[in-house]
Amino acid sequence: MYTVRVDQPDCRFGNMLLEQFGGANGELAAAMQYSVQGINCDDPERKDLLMDIGTEELSHLEVIGVLTRMHLKPMKNKRNEAEADPLIAVIGGGGVNLYNSAGSAWTADYLKVTGELDVDLRGNIAAEARAKITYERLMDFTEDQGTLDALQFLMTREITHMKAFTLALESMGKPAFSIGRRPPTPGIVDQYFNDSTGVGQRGETDALGPWNQGGGWELVESPAFANLQSPVTGEREHGRPTNHRKHAAAAAKGKN
Amino acid sequence: MYTVRVDQPDCRFGNMLLEQFGGANGELAAAMQYSVQGINCDDPERKDLLMDIGTEELSHLEVIGVLTRMHLKPMKNKRNEAEADPLIAVIGGGGVNLYNSAGSAWTADYLKVTGELDVDLRGNIAAEARAKITYERLMDFTEDQGTLDALQFLMTREITHMKAFTLALESMGKPAFSIGRRPPTPGIVDQYFNDSTGVGQRGETDALGPWNQGGGWELVESPAFANLQSPVTGEREHGRPTNHRKHAAAAAKGKN
Amino acid sequence: MYTVRVDQPDCRFGNMLLEQFGGANGELAAAMQYSVQGINCDDPERKDLLMDIGTEELSHLEVIGVLTRMHLKPMKNKRNEAEADPLIAVIGGGGVNLYNSAGSAWTADYLKVTGELDVDLRGNIAAEARAKITYERLMDFTEDQGTLDALQFLMTREITHMKAFTLALESMGKPAFSIGRRPPTPGIVDQYFNDSTGVGQRGETDALGPWNQGGGWELVESPAFANLQSPVTGEREHGRPTNHRKHAAAAAKGKN
Amino acid sequence: MYTVRVDQPDCRFGNMLLEQFGGANGELAAAMQYSVQGINCDDPERKDLLMDIGTEELSHLEVIGVLTRMHLKPMKNKRNEAEADPLIAVIGGGGVNLYNSAGSAWTADYLKVTGELDVDLRGNIAAEARAKITYERLMDFTEDQGTLDALQFLMTREITHMKAFTLALESMGKPAFSIGRRPPTPGIVDQYFNDSTGVGQRGETDALGPWNQGGGWELVESPAFANLQSPVTGEREHGRPTNHRKHAAAAAKGKN
Amino acid sequence: MYTVRVDQPDCRFGNMLLEQFGGANGELAAAMQYSVQGINCDDPERKDLLMDIGTEELSHLEVIGVLTRMHLKPMKNKRNEAEADPLIAVIGGGGVNLYNSAGSAWTADYLKVTGELDVDLRGNIAAEARAKITYERLMDFTEDQGTLDALQFLMTREITHMKAFTLALESMGKPAFSIGRRPPTPGIVDQYFNDSTGVGQRGETDALGPWNQGGGWELVESPAFANLQSPVTGEREHGRPTNHRKHAAAAAKGKN
Amino acid sequence: MYTVRVDQPDCRFGNMLLEQFGGANGELAAAMQYSVQGINCDDPERKDLLMDIGTEELSHLEVIGVLTRMHLKPMKNKRNEAEADPLIAVIGGGGVNLYNSAGSAWTADYLKVTGELDVDLRGNIAAEARAKITYERLMDFTEDQGTLDALQFLMTREITHMKAFTLALESMGKPAFSIGRRPPTPGIVDQYFNDSTGVGQRGETDALGPWNQGGGWELVESPAFANLQSPVTGEREHGRPTNHRKHAAAAAKGKN
Repeated sequence: MYTVRVDQPDCRFGNMLLEQFGGANGELAAAMQYSVQGINCDDPERKDLLMDIGTEELSHLEVIGVLTRMHLKPMKNKRNEAEADPLIAVIGGGGVNLYNSAGSAWTADYLKVTGELDVDLRGNIAAEARAKITYERLMDFTEDQGTLDALQFLMTREITHMKAFTLALESMGKPAFSIGRRPPTPGIVDQYFNDSTGVGQRGETDALGPWNQGGGWELVESPAFANLQSPVTGEREHGRPTNHRKHAAAAAKGKN
Repeated sequence: MYTVRVDQPDCRFGNMLLEQFGGANGELAAAMQYSVQGINCDDPERKDLLMDIGTEELSHLEVIGVLTRMHLKPMKNKRNEAEADPLIAVIGGGGVNLYNSAGSAWTADYLKVTGELDVDLRGNIAAEARAKITYERLMDFTEDQGTLDALQFLMTREITHMKAFTLALESMGKPAFSIGRRPPTPGIVDQYFNDSTGVGQRGETDALGPWNQGGGWELVESPAFANLQSPVTGEREHGRPTNHRKHAAAAAKGKN
Repeated sequence: MYTVRVDQPDCRFGNMLLEQFGGANGELAAAMQYSVQGINCDDPERKDLLMDIGTEELSHLEVIGVLTRMHLKPMKNKRNEAEADPLIAVIGGGGVNLYNSAGSAWTADYLKVTGELDVDLRGNIAAEARAKITYERLMDFTEDQGTLDALQFLMTREITHMKAFTLALESMGKPAFSIGRRPPTPGIVDQYFNDSTGVGQRGETDALGPWNQGGGWELVESPAFANLQSPVTGEREHGRPTNHRKHAAAAAKGKN
Repeated sequence: MYTVRVDQPDCRFGNMLLEQFGGANGELAAAMQYSVQGINCDDPERKDLLMDIGTEELSHLEVIGVLTRMHLKPMKNKRNEAEADPLIAVIGGGGVNLYNSAGSAWTADYLKVTGELDVDLRGNIAAEARAKITYERLMDFTEDQGTLDALQFLMTREITHMKAFTLALESMGKPAFSIGRRPPTPGIVDQYFNDSTGVGQRGETDALGPWNQGGGWELVESPAFANLQSPVTGEREHGRPTNHRKHAAAAAKGKN
Repeated sequence: MYTVRVDQPDCRFGNMLLEQFGGANGELAAAMQYSVQGINCDDPERKDLLMDIGTEELSHLEVIGVLTRMHLKPMKNKRNEAEADPLIAVIGGGGVNLYNSAGSAWTADYLKVTGELDVDLRGNIAAEARAKITYERLMDFTEDQGTLDALQFLMTREITHMKAFTLALESMGKPAFSIGRRPPTPGIVDQYFNDSTGVGQRGETDALGPWNQGGGWELVESPAFANLQSPVTGEREHGRPTNHRKHAAAAAKGKN
Repeated sequence: MYTVRVDQPDCRFGNMLLEQFGGANGELAAAMQYSVQGINCDDPERKDLLMDIGTEELSHLEVIGVLTRMHLKPMKNKRNEAEADPLIAVIGGGGVNLYNSAGSAWTADYLKVTGELDVDLRGNIAAEARAKITYERLMDFTEDQGTLDALQFLMTREITHMKAFTLALESMGKPAFSIGRRPPTPGIVDQYFNDSTGVGQRGETDALGPWNQGGGWELVESPAFANLQSPVTGEREHGRPTNHRKHAAAAAKGKN
């Protein structure tokens, strides 16, 4: 798409770049997630969108692959460079493969494909946000101008895609919290379980925000939890809620 | 939290339930994703939220585990039942383990944790949507009332969490497409690359929607793509865009 | 070692047998665990033991492989048989490979190798117990006499090995709970944390046994936990313990 | 590329087809193996070949994906169909994902990429042979004409690629057993170690063939092995060879 | 539980600490192994034990997570620190995730869960021994006092758990080598197969110990192995045993 | 087999050596690939070959394991050495395990086993070529003479095996491109799809070679592809071919 240029190869940075080639938030993950969703999609218009962006990500895979290859090439015969990524040096002779920076092989477990269009679009929005922040961090670790140019371009396109997926989701006209066909149980759906008593060992108070107060929320304190009406038995429960994590978190809160 | 009841154990359904115990969209994945994000979180209020919901998901893990165990128990000594999930029967003696329905071991590759709060919240919204649709599908495959009650409760809570994460994200007050610190390149960010010419072999027309027209979008047709200004070279490119996927998709479009 | 005989091939049972060929408790896992431990071992006598048993397990791998192959062979061309294990049928043409019954590839993550001899021996004792119970369960799922004979032999040898590893551990003369060089902190090491209050919603009482009463145990009730002397701060803690799991477990206890 | 047609959807066969979508010998594996090799390749002509075939395999991925999707679609709401592949039914709503027939996620561990062109070409020839036999076996398990037509086309192309890779390798003009720069040690390279004495418990005789007799081979019987000149010590070794496998194999040879 | 304190963050040590967060012998592995066993357990008393310790390990997961986070935090923006763990730096922004020190994602393949209580307890004893030695080694690699305090506490608790599991096993009153219901074959169970002749090339003699002499053992020399009565055929076998490993081990014994 | 000698232990090189112990092209992969193929093999002569070489590779596993152990041993207590491979240092106490240089656990996904003899032999030839180049690269990264001697021996044997497998394949007398029973479709099998138009943005011309011209090849230019006769519909297709990769590759071609 444009000429990739590397002014100063840097093996250790090349190792980092593998994240966007064969890593969890990388271009293959993006290309496959959207393309596979596209194959499953029955909505012809959004299928076109999924295929368009899937195709673009596939071309990005090649761009990042070429860029990474340039940084890793010196590994082939130099012991010192090889230590930056022995897997690439010994197995690949300095060539890229679909690993991440830790040498873990790419896996389809990275993908989120549900066959439910609006759910998939939400997953894609999140995926693009992850890809954007990953590119940004990579840019923080290099000063090579040719590399920065390429990463800036790729990073920009992730925002483009994030926007497109968001608009495609909105245009479906579904209410924000309506997923699938089965409605949630009224009442229970509006209860926020405060799974901590707010009297942790360091005296921290529970946080309040729009996610648990106002707007129809019923803030269910732990003790009240005992009276939660079970949808199963039709009886009030009398136990206490699970409340360990808050305490452990408080306890483990470091002072560094 | 409430009494799990199974009226009629069903090994093959128990195998399906493993998806929510040790599967990609299941309760361990949810519990770990939110708790680990919570450990990394520097915002004390939303950290509290992440810990609250992480804790609740952990209790759900136990509910779904007990429910699944009840369905799988008959596997232990009956060859016919054992065929529903040989891994559970032979290795587990009819007991659950952190596998999905295909016997794949749970892996942290399922998690999306970036250490960037708003990005993580977007990932959590998508994760809750996936969990919701997974519970709905499981409900489509059973008629056992006790099981349906438990699944309805768990499904409802996913919507609750989805709502909480959405409100927590909104309350951060960040613009919708602003991720991290580095801005995208103006101009390029508003270009929608129509990676297909719209004259596929079956005559389908390209789809138009709010994701590529109006609102500041510049729809870049493939030919125009040749004139894209490269952020790298500062020169206009003269090539043609990558356009394979659309064609292949069109070609492969089945008639079934 | 002896002639493997199969009277009636049974593809679905062959699929189950894969657990002992390429599964977590199977013969390759045993052979590799002991052999790798042997390579690392500096004690020449127990190294000999590890190599002897590692070698025997390797011959068992071949026995179980041949036995499994006999059961799976009919898969090659018969659609109905192939459904018993499509991976074996399509990829292997009815031949075995190092998969378990769920088609998961064997992984060295199954191995427990620490390079600390007494720790490794404990791991081996446990591994042999697992292999034994796995063989027993397989025997519960077949009536083929030739197969039963082979499995009985292999199962017997696991007990032999369990015994040998136990005696090798005992002959090292180390106290039962002394691992490595660093001693545990006195006092704390004898505290049993009763991470539940014993007043669960269904009224179950906490269990008492030699693992938390008598013999030097200090049973630390949850409230008392607040006064645990921290080895870090030298101060008494004032929080409450983590106590969620017990409640959740109680709550989720089914009635089926 | 051509219209995929399915006359009679068949979920269990769709499950098998996943081998060529997300399996070890499937189209993604082929597309990625050749494309990644192409990125690493410094020979412009064979790089073009790798990219051409990598591109074609990518279009095949879409063909097989669409075909598989058609077979799996009925899974969505029917319990009986869902049992054919619960992972696809529950997680994918009947949509494909990059799994194999056993539900294992696609992994880059399937790829063989060395960055040494002639070595990679040998790997590709073998990969095409595997893909061919996989398609043939799938054809043995279906009678659906539309499906057979598609599989016949895809199978044919694997032979085309096998031929192209073979000719590309031959045109490099390298001797058959010359790999890399370092020559093997003369003498030792021509020794065939007969790691069994030929007097197994069932009296089988060792096999002789062009792989161990004639043509410069020195057949080193196990006893002679003791006199092998070590390249390390410069001394003759006096031990006996490793000879276990042959015996075990013989012993385990079944009578079924 | 107590305040975690880090005096001097150390990214490379933080990378090592990940072993106890998301590694094979780490706290998630322990928490999940015991909790899942607890869900499967039909013995109410030992189920309580499994749940108590599972809960405690879960709180340890949080302690180790917070500790590790403190050590890794400087990675976020510093290239030099980021090289200590590029995966954490680029994907996590310096935040922890469920990886081990090599960046491999946590997998349930680490767990040993059989659904047979005494077998599971043996596995837990071994698991605690492994966790103890892992903590000890970590302590060997840091001099940070706050970190050492936390690790000493966590290490101590592993010994506590090892003791509890041992006593729980003993209190079941089962004979040491009785697993499951099916007895081993008498005679064969007491034979120790000396899978090497004791005349290796370096003249080492076979080791003797309580694991192969005295106490009912029949030491079966390799030649005698030929006369082993097969449980399958009822005939004496006439082959020689597999004896390769011992020789290879002897041969490969280094002089360093 | 011969005495392994290490003059100067080198932890970082020991880490690299793990590739041949527990890596994708290593000795366990070779040993298992050939042995498992041997178990499945119905041709008694080539089964003997597979078992002979499988056995030899198993002895090589031990040689490389001992060699690697010698290099890694200093890791146990030295922080600086431990940083060369924290997984080995912390989990293994300086002992080897079946990991590759990136700490990924060995997986049977590395194996290529099809149960079709000539296909397997092709895979083995390629596997030996990979093992050879891997040994060569390792030799490029060390100057330790004892280590070099061992690697030279092991490398030499890979060529021996490559030759043996090649001759075994040739002696089967099958035509070069005949795999299985189903013949490819005439005509289509001889078409080389030039999936790029040869007028890339940088003006590169398409490569021609024996793999797409002469010898019966029909070079199908992209436009002509539109007229490819579909084996499915019997109709001429009118679309354009997939041609993206070539362009993307050209575009991404770096200048470094």
